[in-house]
Amino acid sequence: MCELLGVSANVAISSRKVFSVLAERGGNSGPHKDGWGVTFYEGEQGRGCRTFKDTDPCCCSKTSEFVKQQPFPSQLVLAHIRDANRGSVSMENTHPFTRELWGRCWNYAHNGQLDAFEQLDTGDHHPLGQTDSEQAFCWLLNQMKTTFVTPPSDTLELMEFVATKAAYLSTLGVFNMLLSDGEYLLAFCATKLSWVTRTAPFASVEFTDGVGSQNLAAEYQEQDVISLVATQPLTDEPWCQLQQNDYAIFHRGRCIRCSAQNSPAHHLQSGIKQDV
Amino acid sequence: MCELLGVSANVAISSRKVFSVLAERGGNSGPHKDGWGVTFYEGEQGRGCRTFKDTDPCCCSKTSEFVKQQPFPSQLVLAHIRDANRGSVSMENTHPFTRELWGRCWNYAHNGQLDAFEQLDTGDHHPLGQTDSEQAFCWLLNQMKTTFVTPPSDTLELMEFVATKAAYLSTLGVFNMLLSDGEYLLAFCATKLSWVTRTAPFASVEFTDGVGSQNLAAEYQEQDVISLVATQPLTDEPWCQLQQNDYAIFHRGRCIRCSAQNSPAHHLQSGIKQDV
Repeated sequence: MCELLGVSANVAISSRKVFSVLAERGGNSGPHKDGWGVTFYEGEQGRGCRTFKDTDPCCCSKTSEFVKQQPFPSQLVLAHIRDANRGSVSMENTHPFTRELWGRCWNYAHNGQLDAFEQLDTGDHHPLGQTDSEQAFCWLLNQMKTTFVTPPSDTLELMEFVATKAAYLSTLGVFNMLLSDGEYLLAFCATKLSWVTRTAPFASVEFTDGVGSQNLAAEYQEQDVISLVATQPLTDEPWCQLQQNDYAIFHRGRCIRCSAQNSPAHHLQSGIKQDV
Repeated sequence: MCELLGVSANVAISSRKVFSVLAERGGNSGPHKDGWGVTFYEGEQGRGCRTFKDTDPCCCSKTSEFVKQQPFPSQLVLAHIRDANRGSVSMENTHPFTRELWGRCWNYAHNGQLDAFEQLDTGDHHPLGQTDSEQAFCWLLNQMKTTFVTPPSDTLELMEFVATKAAYLSTLGVFNMLLSDGEYLLAFCATKLSWVTRTAPFASVEFTDGVGSQNLAAEYQEQDVISLVATQPLTDEPWCQLQQNDYAIFHRGRCIRCSAQNSPAHHLQSGIKQDV
């Protein structure tokens, strides 16, 4: 299995601290040692991407050491640490996978494992590697392209369509997924995915995995809104756990659509501070 | 205008020294300060890519400083430093541009400027940015896809087809280009592009732009074959200058097809050693 991390914000922020937590779990405090990748979308509309990948474990990759030192301000970040099950440890099998569709740069990462994935019709979108993950991504792109003959003007509607297709993929195995076009971030949960939204007043948060703490008040402005979504909570904030086949869609920092009943029972008792 | 660099080899080698020369020309010894990018294909068949890009000048970008320190062994490298004419200085306008076609990862970089590029029909391949370069790339991909209904088994034939289309693009302005699928490297020259092939016995080479020298004999093995192609010679080796609308196709280090008449007149007297 693997782990996922997504960040959506209404202003370009540095995600190096939370990326550093994920990096620890990539071969040090977690077993996901078979490569990693991160995409930082850039610009107000997220048209450009700054992507780093490596086949070395994220905890000790030279490239991740470099990335952890840079701010790379971004309103939308998508990251993955890999624990390979299908496909060799190689660059072509390293998430996130990227494709252009309708003039947008789509990034996607998957946690899980699918059976019978070879039967998924990918149309004109061909996998570069051998993973079930990339085959599923290409199938999703083909579903989008063949269903919407013209590019949909409503990306929210499009993301909800993708969520229904993700629900189908989850019948083939385990399918936790992050997908983004640079503006919207779709998080689909089959088994394990949590999220939290940060708004003012900001306080200090304690990271998991011994990475330390961060004083959000010193980094964020009053009007900033930031959401994090990850395989498991990476801070002591009150993360919300998505349930099976739930999805959440984030836009400029806020969860704007969520299929989950976010009852208190779904809130994790994850750490030191529950009142942040 | 911009500058291009391509490397093709029959074995995975480090290209950091020659990349360092290009980096100097990106805002220091040359004016191409508007961002840069480099792709290192990986694996025997070049299915995977390791790509770095930045909008800062290559001469002083933190990411290029990092890249210059890493070996990143690769049999095929494609790099670009940008001097923006069309499109803002942004990640989406930074070369190389990348697309998947027929299950291969295509990378492309352009030096020049095209008129009436908006009229180029790109079909299902949409530019992410605003450059004439990316529009031309998408047009080339569309030409490939619509001409070859099934993926061609002979990539050499495909590259020669692309060269004929590049010749058309050069009627719209200046079109020097590098294109690769990870195995083959096509270099098309409108105005300025040179190449050199290194074979045993290897000697020392002196770089341009004050970057120093490199003892190739200490780095390469007897059977290694390496070709470099660049906007202008980056070493004192006897580079061969392509003429207008000439092209060269490289595979595993060798130039396997070249439209140029490589007469001695085309060989540049570029430096200290002519007998390497």
